[in-house]
Amino acid sequence: MSLEKAKQVAAYRAVDEFVKGHCVFGVGSGSTVVYAVQRLAERVETENLKVICIPTSFQAKQLIIKYNLTLGELETHPNIDVTIDGADEVDSNMTLIKGGGGCLLQEKIVASCSKKMIVIADYTKDSKKLGDRYKKGIPIEVIPMAYVPIKNKVVAMFGGEIKLRSAIAKAGPVVTDNGNFILDWMFTNQDLDWEKTSNIIKLMPGVVEIGLFVKMCEKAYFGQAEGTVIERSV
Amino acid sequence: MSLEKAKQVAAYRAVDEFVKGHCVFGVGSGSTVVYAVQRLAERVETENLKVICIPTSFQAKQLIIKYNLTLGELETHPNIDVTIDGADEVDSNMTLIKGGGGCLLQEKIVASCSKKMIVIADYTKDSKKLGDRYKKGIPIEVIPMAYVPIKNKVVAMFGGEIKLRSAIAKAGPVVTDNGNFILDWMFTNQDLDWEKTSNIIKLMPGVVEIGLFVKMCEKAYFGQAEGTVIERSV
Repeated sequence: MSLEKAKQVAAYRAVDEFVKGHCVFGVGSGSTVVYAVQRLAERVETENLKVICIPTSFQAKQLIIKYNLTLGELETHPNIDVTIDGADEVDSNMTLIKGGGGCLLQEKIVASCSKKMIVIADYTKDSKKLGDRYKKGIPIEVIPMAYVPIKNKVVAMFGGEIKLRSAIAKAGPVVTDNGNFILDWMFTNQDLDWEKTSNIIKLMPGVVEIGLFVKMCEKAYFGQAEGTVIERSV
Repeated sequence: MSLEKAKQVAAYRAVDEFVKGHCVFGVGSGSTVVYAVQRLAERVETENLKVICIPTSFQAKQLIIKYNLTLGELETHPNIDVTIDGADEVDSNMTLIKGGGGCLLQEKIVASCSKKMIVIADYTKDSKKLGDRYKKGIPIEVIPMAYVPIKNKVVAMFGGEIKLRSAIAKAGPVVTDNGNFILDWMFTNQDLDWEKTSNIIKLMPGVVEIGLFVKMCEKAYFGQAEGTVIERSV
């Protein structure tokens, strides 16, 4: 319950600080974002705001519809004012691991079209170095035919281990909203240059996206168990 | 007819020089590759070679099946000895434009897993600078939801014009073998650093691959109208 409270206070604080009037708003994915959408819906209603919501996943789209918000698309709104999203881990440089829920690709597309990207999370996501707290590795979304060569190349270059993410409610691998597979890279070297590493991996043919967000997030809100919020900026 | 002859002589020459025995062979896509597969099939039959063929497209796979060659996958054969593929244009530095047929993604994945990538083409593909002869631009394969922001970003950074590739036998855009869209980038600056440009574009979230092949091709065979072959190496 205190974890839920922590998510909620972070989400409410971020929405209240970054939604100041009519805007194009990127809706992240995951359990913390649910609270942000709740708060956004309250404010749209009470303040009569015009907010166009751009989803980062099927889940985000369903939330937008459930709360009667206005659904938009990058096709008509390629310039987003602010995106609020969760993260699996945030290090002291504001580098993020995202993709535990498998939505890293659309999340990164939407973030890359946003003037500001804000992270909301509970205190368990607040970390000094990537890997200190989050133990599920860095997700790499790949074209199915290429999963073996990419797995081999990443391990040969950077070490660690890679597992093809398995589905639970179907036999075989997880298939993403865009029809790809996810490799979970359990890195062992916590001192890699994440910007360089991310770029090298994304440049491999067959890699669609990597769940490292470097220099994308402007501010993070970490909700605490007792209901306060710790903020971190770049 | 002389164009067909040019394609054939290039294809036969390349297969004869690069298939020396049992090997894992990457099968490119397009009209010139048909001759390479014909020649490979003849040699496998007469020399009793064991060749595992890795396709770069649905078309390539159908060719492998039609000629009774052994079909393989990157999953079991991630290390390819040689890939022979066509190109839309080859410049004097052996930088290629590929993807006129929409198969750039799988072609680049297979090329990137190959010890050697060899291009076969007729004389009309032989160029000094990209854009001298090929007028259809550089294809960029993108996640459908991101086509507008990517179009805007590429044009803002590098100039030129971009068109979403339209399908002919269906309404709306071409959908690739991997479910993506293709942007055709009609660049105007022929003096861009293609390696840098290619990397910058691939790093944009939502870009799956770009049809620029830089430092990937080791040798090109250009068939001539009169039946001779001009070779170019790095």
